[in-house]
Amino acid sequence: MKLFSTPTVLFLLLFSTISTSQNAVKDSIMLKKIYTAALTEGKSYEWLDYLSNEIGSRLSGSIEAETAVKYTEAQLNELGLDKVWLQPVMVPRWTRGFKEYAYIETLTGEKTITEICALGGSVPTPNLGLKAEVVEVHGIEELASLGEEKLAGKIVFFNRPMDASLINTFEAYGGCVDQRYSGAAEAGKYGAVGVIVRSMNLRLDDLPHAGAMSYGDTPVNMRIPAAAISTNGAEYLSSLLKLQPNLMFYFKQNCKTYDDVLSHNVIGEITGSTNPNEFMIVGGHLDSWDLADGSHDDGAGCVQSMEVLRLFKKIGYKPKHSIRVVLFMNEENGLRGGKKYAEEVKRTGEKHLFALESDAGGFTPRGFSFQTNEANFKKVQSWQALFKPYLIHYFEKGHGGADIGPLEGNIDVLAGLRPDSQRYFDHHHAANDIFEHVNKRELELGAASMASLVYLFDMYGTK
Amino acid sequence: MKLFSTPTVLFLLLFSTISTSQNAVKDSIMLKKIYTAALTEGKSYEWLDYLSNEIGSRLSGSIEAETAVKYTEAQLNELGLDKVWLQPVMVPRWTRGFKEYAYIETLTGEKTITEICALGGSVPTPNLGLKAEVVEVHGIEELASLGEEKLAGKIVFFNRPMDASLINTFEAYGGCVDQRYSGAAEAGKYGAVGVIVRSMNLRLDDLPHAGAMSYGDTPVNMRIPAAAISTNGAEYLSSLLKLQPNLMFYFKQNCKTYDDVLSHNVIGEITGSTNPNEFMIVGGHLDSWDLADGSHDDGAGCVQSMEVLRLFKKIGYKPKHSIRVVLFMNEENGLRGGKKYAEEVKRTGEKHLFALESDAGGFTPRGFSFQTNEANFKKVQSWQALFKPYLIHYFEKGHGGADIGPLEGNIDVLAGLRPDSQRYFDHHHAANDIFEHVNKRELELGAASMASLVYLFDMYGTK
Repeated sequence: MKLFSTPTVLFLLLFSTISTSQNAVKDSIMLKKIYTAALTEGKSYEWLDYLSNEIGSRLSGSIEAETAVKYTEAQLNELGLDKVWLQPVMVPRWTRGFKEYAYIETLTGEKTITEICALGGSVPTPNLGLKAEVVEVHGIEELASLGEEKLAGKIVFFNRPMDASLINTFEAYGGCVDQRYSGAAEAGKYGAVGVIVRSMNLRLDDLPHAGAMSYGDTPVNMRIPAAAISTNGAEYLSSLLKLQPNLMFYFKQNCKTYDDVLSHNVIGEITGSTNPNEFMIVGGHLDSWDLADGSHDDGAGCVQSMEVLRLFKKIGYKPKHSIRVVLFMNEENGLRGGKKYAEEVKRTGEKHLFALESDAGGFTPRGFSFQTNEANFKKVQSWQALFKPYLIHYFEKGHGGADIGPLEGNIDVLAGLRPDSQRYFDHHHAANDIFEHVNKRELELGAASMASLVYLFDMYGTK
Repeated sequence: MKLFSTPTVLFLLLFSTISTSQNAVKDSIMLKKIYTAALTEGKSYEWLDYLSNEIGSRLSGSIEAETAVKYTEAQLNELGLDKVWLQPVMVPRWTRGFKEYAYIETLTGEKTITEICALGGSVPTPNLGLKAEVVEVHGIEELASLGEEKLAGKIVFFNRPMDASLINTFEAYGGCVDQRYSGAAEAGKYGAVGVIVRSMNLRLDDLPHAGAMSYGDTPVNMRIPAAAISTNGAEYLSSLLKLQPNLMFYFKQNCKTYDDVLSHNVIGEITGSTNPNEFMIVGGHLDSWDLADGSHDDGAGCVQSMEVLRLFKKIGYKPKHSIRVVLFMNEENGLRGGKKYAEEVKRTGEKHLFALESDAGGFTPRGFSFQTNEANFKKVQSWQALFKPYLIHYFEKGHGGADIGPLEGNIDVLAGLRPDSQRYFDHHHAANDIFEHVNKRELELGAASMASLVYLFDMYGTK
């Protein structure tokens, strides 16, 4: 059966080409508008200045975290969104206490002070501190071969460095972070009394890098304290251990876990003009570690996400679907905000199409990673050419983001902004994750890239 | 006429595919070797540390520039190259003299000190300085309409900012730099007595940015002094001028031009194993402005270029063609080194195939621009997939580099490393172009990208 005559087919082909190229022209004009507004009339940098310099570090349960909730709620209210609200969520409350103190003591009694920080979730040392011999290992798997005989009563020093030959520094992080997260739980099984972990940092410096750890199902009375040591400290300790395997390490920390407290995800919404009950979200996490102001992790992601909605208002774009900014609470040490948002989506049955997270720093955007099926990914790839003028080249399958992860199964596409990763772990969770290390244009380009992607999803859906 | 039977064609196709894919495998293994060596056993950062922190700023004709010549020559000698030599070149010698001094004086006599720096090549002010009313313009083309009537006896203030909406910041620079380069020569024609130029900087800060200017064919006794003012200073001056159009600006500078002096390009060579008389060069410029240590402009390009040859030695790659590193002298205020090298190539008839310059900062490499014909560009594009694992995506036609530019017409391909440009003009020619703003991994990734491109040109030629 011949459905169409040849001229008809030609006409249809022609029509579809014209229509596609008309879209391409319209879309490229819209992206230009978005990028220009972000770079010349942006607000993300000003917001980040306030979050970082006026409020500061925002560990879950802290007064600063609550101040940040109020500040961002107020800022979203000023944007004239259709709805702004707080979503209650119970979060852990862990405090560092006084500054940690540590030294290496040689056999002749010389003490060299070294920089450490308690890992998030760790128990304190005894009040007078903890002194023991040190066993250096390069991974959890070494513990079994050493056994209780070699580890009981000792401090285990996890010293596997990040692999500098990996181009994506997040991969290098992924190859090391088990030492930090599970090192204490695993070493404790062999009678170790404490754990010191090399900071997850690709360069050599004096800054210890915080981060979450977990005791898993270790009984409370079996938990041993864990701290991170700077990369310079780790190198020094390791070299001394070669000379004096029986040197002693002393550390003292006063961190504590209190009862969970009430906190909030901060949410703002532009309600969709034609599909108000279909949602697309863009977000970052509002909490940060306590050693710095958390400008890259993840102040940047929060203000970029807020900026997406502000840019739509600014250029007068009225989305078809409902677009929400979600500032998640407690990504760093619990992910309670992300889990809570996903629970609510499941409970209410709200239809979510697309979620985009920025939680990899405020550096020059290189592209996006997409967690979705082949059909959706193909659709997304067809938009790639639109981003070329903005030097956004990276469109790959991959992880969306921690906070939006719990939505998986109840959403079509999860995506993550992928900024340049080379400098990220120089600052990650350390005292130098501060405002002056975020570049205004790089931050703004990220926000514009996010807004552009949300615009395209809004225009062309996910099916 | 049927040249081949179908099976023969199929066989040929198959053979060519296998051969291509075998090359692709071999090449991807080589690139991995290059990148891994650069990231784990690199030397570029150590060299840059010495150039920046031990030697410092390297303006042509200065003692530091000569020290840098000796240092890099010695370092190249240590690499065990086949030849290392100095190529003599006469360079201009301009000195800043004492620190410039400037203030804005309001009608009530209040003086506000403002940060300026003399532009490279400028004449000094009179010994007691220069005070005059100010006429703000936004481009050279405005001068003619104002004419001698409005400009005679005045200081012309060029205040056109860089266009923040342009993604490639070098384009924004290109759109402004005529004010700095030709502003004094042009304003002088209308009887202006001095020129103040807004710094070529996309952000607002207090740092004046140096850079070259030229009087063209203006007679010596008609030359007027020119200085750059910081972007904050420019904004302040502009806002005050709206309130008090008759305010006065005072500045004093003591810069001088002396006779040309002898300096050198520094050259090292690995002689080609099969085509020793065909040359490929990689380079940057050794001179820098005097306000900082010139780590990005262009210490980075120098050490990356040296690193290309070191990496080849390190991994045991013996190039077929002769590969030279050329550290050019005097890019900033004369381009004498680049011109001299090209003159010598022309004079000796040395066959040059390919030149690659790194002179756009030590930031994360994004790709390359190529100045060549369509056939060579197509060939280059066929290598693009090899760079994808290193997140090098940008392969476009464009400018090679200032120092290698004079080779045009006597070479097949000129190319430029294209690092991320967002932060470049925050530092360019200003007091904050210092070592701490160069990231070790970013610098090393640039060197590895350059070495990889040179390897591919060496393997597959330019025809």
